[in-house]
Amino acid sequence: MTTVAFLGLGIMGGPMARNLVRAGFDVIGFNRSRPPVDRLVEQGGRAADSIAEAVRAADVVVTMLPDSSDVEEVVLGEGGVLASAKEGVLLIDCSTIRPETSKSVAATAERFGVRVLDAPVSGGEQGAIDGALSIMVGGAPEDFEAARPVLDAVGKTIVRVGPAGAGQTVKAANQLIVAGNLELVAEAIVFLEAQDVDTDAATKVLAGGLAGSAVLDRKSAGMFAREFTPGFRLALHHKDLGIVESTARESGVVLPLGAVVSQLVAALVARGDGGLDHSALLKLAEELSGRGRKS
Amino acid sequence: MTTVAFLGLGIMGGPMARNLVRAGFDVIGFNRSRPPVDRLVEQGGRAADSIAEAVRAADVVVTMLPDSSDVEEVVLGEGGVLASAKEGVLLIDCSTIRPETSKSVAATAERFGVRVLDAPVSGGEQGAIDGALSIMVGGAPEDFEAARPVLDAVGKTIVRVGPAGAGQTVKAANQLIVAGNLELVAEAIVFLEAQDVDTDAATKVLAGGLAGSAVLDRKSAGMFAREFTPGFRLALHHKDLGIVESTARESGVVLPLGAVVSQLVAALVARGDGGLDHSALLKLAEELSGRGRKS
Amino acid sequence: MTTVAFLGLGIMGGPMARNLVRAGFDVIGFNRSRPPVDRLVEQGGRAADSIAEAVRAADVVVTMLPDSSDVEEVVLGEGGVLASAKEGVLLIDCSTIRPETSKSVAATAERFGVRVLDAPVSGGEQGAIDGALSIMVGGAPEDFEAARPVLDAVGKTIVRVGPAGAGQTVKAANQLIVAGNLELVAEAIVFLEAQDVDTDAATKVLAGGLAGSAVLDRKSAGMFAREFTPGFRLALHHKDLGIVESTARESGVVLPLGAVVSQLVAALVARGDGGLDHSALLKLAEELSGRGRKS
Amino acid sequence: MTTVAFLGLGIMGGPMARNLVRAGFDVIGFNRSRPPVDRLVEQGGRAADSIAEAVRAADVVVTMLPDSSDVEEVVLGEGGVLASAKEGVLLIDCSTIRPETSKSVAATAERFGVRVLDAPVSGGEQGAIDGALSIMVGGAPEDFEAARPVLDAVGKTIVRVGPAGAGQTVKAANQLIVAGNLELVAEAIVFLEAQDVDTDAATKVLAGGLAGSAVLDRKSAGMFAREFTPGFRLALHHKDLGIVESTARESGVVLPLGAVVSQLVAALVARGDGGLDHSALLKLAEELSGRGRKS
Repeated sequence: MTTVAFLGLGIMGGPMARNLVRAGFDVIGFNRSRPPVDRLVEQGGRAADSIAEAVRAADVVVTMLPDSSDVEEVVLGEGGVLASAKEGVLLIDCSTIRPETSKSVAATAERFGVRVLDAPVSGGEQGAIDGALSIMVGGAPEDFEAARPVLDAVGKTIVRVGPAGAGQTVKAANQLIVAGNLELVAEAIVFLEAQDVDTDAATKVLAGGLAGSAVLDRKSAGMFAREFTPGFRLALHHKDLGIVESTARESGVVLPLGAVVSQLVAALVARGDGGLDHSALLKLAEELSGRGRKS
Repeated sequence: MTTVAFLGLGIMGGPMARNLVRAGFDVIGFNRSRPPVDRLVEQGGRAADSIAEAVRAADVVVTMLPDSSDVEEVVLGEGGVLASAKEGVLLIDCSTIRPETSKSVAATAERFGVRVLDAPVSGGEQGAIDGALSIMVGGAPEDFEAARPVLDAVGKTIVRVGPAGAGQTVKAANQLIVAGNLELVAEAIVFLEAQDVDTDAATKVLAGGLAGSAVLDRKSAGMFAREFTPGFRLALHHKDLGIVESTARESGVVLPLGAVVSQLVAALVARGDGGLDHSALLKLAEELSGRGRKS
Repeated sequence: MTTVAFLGLGIMGGPMARNLVRAGFDVIGFNRSRPPVDRLVEQGGRAADSIAEAVRAADVVVTMLPDSSDVEEVVLGEGGVLASAKEGVLLIDCSTIRPETSKSVAATAERFGVRVLDAPVSGGEQGAIDGALSIMVGGAPEDFEAARPVLDAVGKTIVRVGPAGAGQTVKAANQLIVAGNLELVAEAIVFLEAQDVDTDAATKVLAGGLAGSAVLDRKSAGMFAREFTPGFRLALHHKDLGIVESTARESGVVLPLGAVVSQLVAALVARGDGGLDHSALLKLAEELSGRGRKS
Repeated sequence: MTTVAFLGLGIMGGPMARNLVRAGFDVIGFNRSRPPVDRLVEQGGRAADSIAEAVRAADVVVTMLPDSSDVEEVVLGEGGVLASAKEGVLLIDCSTIRPETSKSVAATAERFGVRVLDAPVSGGEQGAIDGALSIMVGGAPEDFEAARPVLDAVGKTIVRVGPAGAGQTVKAANQLIVAGNLELVAEAIVFLEAQDVDTDAATKVLAGGLAGSAVLDRKSAGMFAREFTPGFRLALHHKDLGIVESTARESGVVLPLGAVVSQLVAALVARGDGGLDHSALLKLAEELSGRGRKS
């Protein structure tokens, strides 16, 4: 029986760990605060009081952490994964962080005999609960194969997209496109609502043609209803667009639309709307056109 | 048997008129240059030497013309539709023009007893050939019902989206979203190619999630191959974004992303790339990142 | 004694006409509403009840009107300048309108034996009162020379910048730069105020270097004080940026920064701030950063 | 006699150190490569073979280094300023770096009894040679007073703008405005040249009004002549705009125009034009309008 240490049992990590339990893995969970660990135990997992305790006997370590600095601390830090795990362990980092950090963590881990995959996910809380996440994996092909049983338990579309860091790069591209599509649909909605148009019929015909998108299919109804409960929070998308921007800068890539949509997301966060769903780009779009319902 | 006068037998109008013949309509065609008219006759239609001759006995008039000024001239001008058609005729304007022009043409036509629908299409040359266009219709519900047999012969998704001008408004929103999605995919491609990523695998995973879109499905393969044969020409998309911008200005709608993508399309046209497919936004995107293959 | 017909006695035209009276011209004024005409009479001018009456005996006609359509109507329309003025008259149009309109008006006027200069001004209401406007003149050199005495009475910096329409083109470029500089100073102010900086000292050192500008010199104090009494109204600047955009589109010129600042100005107008001074770009800038004082 | 250690004798640091010699200071220079040190000795300074040797007996240490990481290494690193300087020394850092770095360096230095000012400069190589730099200083008022004699020897406009980091913040705002003004003038030049306008006359009238700026005064002649020898290199401005962006992100400030101009500067650097003067923004502006002279 494979033992999986799961570090970071938040909104995403919690349901992912439970799905691993359900799939028959021996899961030892650790989290900075205790309640999520207790919940995992109720669901059939085991509890650890420290990273060291969690990873000591693990065959696989999965991390799901907020940001680049958290991954560096948990993996490289004192009492962290590299200091405590047995040699040959496979570390699957599902956090969305900077590609450069994933690369340097993988390079350091290699010196400790630890294999690393960066495996950021998309699909949101619902995808995590349903075990239906999309997972973009960077790392060695043989490590990817070794990780398949674990990844299959939490995701549906699981694709290796290149060497270490490649998963993060593709996740960054994903977040760039998603933010842009949300903003375009927001601008189109404001445009349509300012005219004498049947917006339901309009959405139907738009969705059926070259303007069609997953954003239009899954998000426009909520947008028309001004229902902005997350889903995926603007504050997180703001963080992710920071990764897009710094990666683009480091690699000499110019993103005219990306830069503008990033400012719009930043504006919503700066105004205090970071806790809303990212489709709340509509809120700013309509305020800019004097049509906002200031609340 | 319903007689349809078809004015404007170009790349789109030609196959549309032929599909009307096939559907059993009596089609009389007129075009500024003669060869397209001769082709229609070979396909079973009839020829007219003037607008007046074409529309005189028609029950329905279909127009498919390049720009707002053409529609004004053909419909309102001397020897035009209003001057020559019988009372009660139904005019279906499939051109993509300014919503304001559609509204004013409809208002003028009403005084002549002519009913008007604005019915711009999307789906491109292939959609016109296959009779599979999406059609966004503005006008009175009863006129829309009367036009159904004609529209069914040329389109697949046919939706009434509101009163006069509404079809144009929705088409404008469509062009805004499409241009933006193309640019976002272009930026993502440059971003991915600048990194060490398997772009095929990356596209697969992007297309399956919230970043998915018709642009990614139908256009990205051609973009990766730098195959920019139209399809839909940048010069036409540039014209359409001009309609988006003027309509937005008139109605006090602010389009931050729309404004930027419009400049990028304008740049390609200014540089002489107006004859390429609109997916050639990638060409500019990669040149801006110093990765272009200047040709 | 030279007789000058002055058409359009508004905020700018009123003081300009008075300065012509002071300089010794015989000024006959016409305005759509009567009170400004009465005021001119009190100041030593004469009143006309129609355009025809005003221009009939004039050697020079000066127009100061809101928009392109007004100039077309007043000059080309029934009972307008061309229909009523004597041959050889010199028409100086001080309105800010589309360069294309200025060119076509000049071409039409030539057929009537009327010489035309486009002579838009900058310097605002205060400049008009002080007779200290900057005037950008398009037209024939000999007409410019003939117009000098009149222009000298209302302006200080008076430069011929090319043939018909050139004055409008330069005025458009002026409005592009001014809007952009105002927005840059607004963004810099928000940036500085968000940090722990002595903004007075900062402005002093910024103004003294390559960042220095007339906007920083004349506008930043009002901006720091959030004093947005016009001055030059955002609604007018919005109109002028429409001229910039349509002229750029017609001539294949791409303006990435111009397009974005134009959207920001449009946003303020859409929200109902069109009556504020154009330096109120700061209001939007700080709201986008969550620092606005919503009022 | 005050002893000044000068670390970093590059294009800016070299002439600044010489001006300190001229002003009567005892200057000990250190530079990673040797030739600039030899040049300083010829000019009356003294040579050091290491940072430690340079700073050991210094009353004041001046640093002029490329980037944030260099300052951290030279000041905080092994054998660096803090490790080697005597207590109470005054460190004046003239590098342009991240405000956050300046703050953290100052906080660390305080624990070593070293007083720090961040004192970035503007005015370019010529300003450094002429001792006419503008200097934006962050730090304690009494340290600023103590630094005056040194700063007076290299600059003309010397202003304390706030506590530690404030100098960098103001320098960042300066670079934001300068880049934006250059791009606006570039767009205006392309706009004017696309029309039939006397650009010399146009520039004269633009410079005299609210559109006037130091950029228009000092840079437009070179731009009209396409003379892009630096001056200030685009690659450095690109680095500085990175500081602007990261500082804005950290403090929740939204910069719509700043974000776009930053992408344009990034494009020029990505294409290989980073060695040109920042006024070469014109090169990209005209290429985007299809008017470029591709070279």
